[in-house]
Amino acid sequence: MKYYEDFELGLRHHSEQQHELTREEIISYCKEWDPMPFHVDEAAAAASYVGKLFTSSMHVVAIGSKLAHSMKQEESAMIAGLGWEDVRFFLPACVGDKLRVCSYVSAKRESKSRPDQGILTSTIELLNQDDAIVASYKIVSLIMKKPEVI
Amino acid sequence: MKYYEDFELGLRHHSEQQHELTREEIISYCKEWDPMPFHVDEAAAAASYVGKLFTSSMHVVAIGSKLAHSMKQEESAMIAGLGWEDVRFFLPACVGDKLRVCSYVSAKRESKSRPDQGILTSTIELLNQDDAIVASYKIVSLIMKKPEVI
Repeated sequence: MKYYEDFELGLRHHSEQQHELTREEIISYCKEWDPMPFHVDEAAAAASYVGKLFTSSMHVVAIGSKLAHSMKQEESAMIAGLGWEDVRFFLPACVGDKLRVCSYVSAKRESKSRPDQGILTSTIELLNQDDAIVASYKIVSLIMKKPEVI
Repeated sequence: MKYYEDFELGLRHHSEQQHELTREEIISYCKEWDPMPFHVDEAAAAASYVGKLFTSSMHVVAIGSKLAHSMKQEESAMIAGLGWEDVRFFLPACVGDKLRVCSYVSAKRESKSRPDQGILTSTIELLNQDDAIVASYKIVSLIMKKPEVI
């Protein structure tokens, strides 16, 4: 089990897996959660600013989470997510794009009110097959400190 | 079609629909996008800080998007999402919770580089059946200005 103390600031991890976006997955995800015409209809997408089908921001962040899980070596003592900061979408994610994740702990501090817990900020970058950053964001999480050994 | 000029600052909209969280939907969404043990396994959830199954932050934001779509009166001339700010998770969202959305435009400005476009910031609040805020966040979007009438 990985506790607060086990996370090293600035150590970058890369996902070995990548996630290739398909037309079917984009349309299926967006129909349910973000049915903008340019996410679910190829004709509307062709007439959009991007000019072709691209997926929802929501889906991009969900893929980031999935890829982050794929590279976990060991279960962490994470309690809950507190929030996200600076969620930025730089490029559209389109059919055929192969996304992967680079992440690192960008800040950590002990909880002021809960002496057995700490707060980690992880920065997540989603990159495509051209090594361009599609999206980036920070996840702030509450995590247990290592239990005292008696 | 609703353009940049048509959005009024501070005007609150409430979703008529609500989204009731089921065990099946939580497990199915989280298995695919955020398979933390406490999101996909009831025994692990019972042993967690929350003490029962609760869903992923990602799923909560996706539900916010779905509910926001449900209350749209008219299609908007939105081009793309630029980013999200101050994404906060205040309470766990659990089986049986009934979520609804309250949203308003909290900032708007003209684009400096693109004279035909503007930038809207929408604040989204997700409330549960007790009127408590489960999550809130701001969505920053690029939107077309009204076409010039010749």
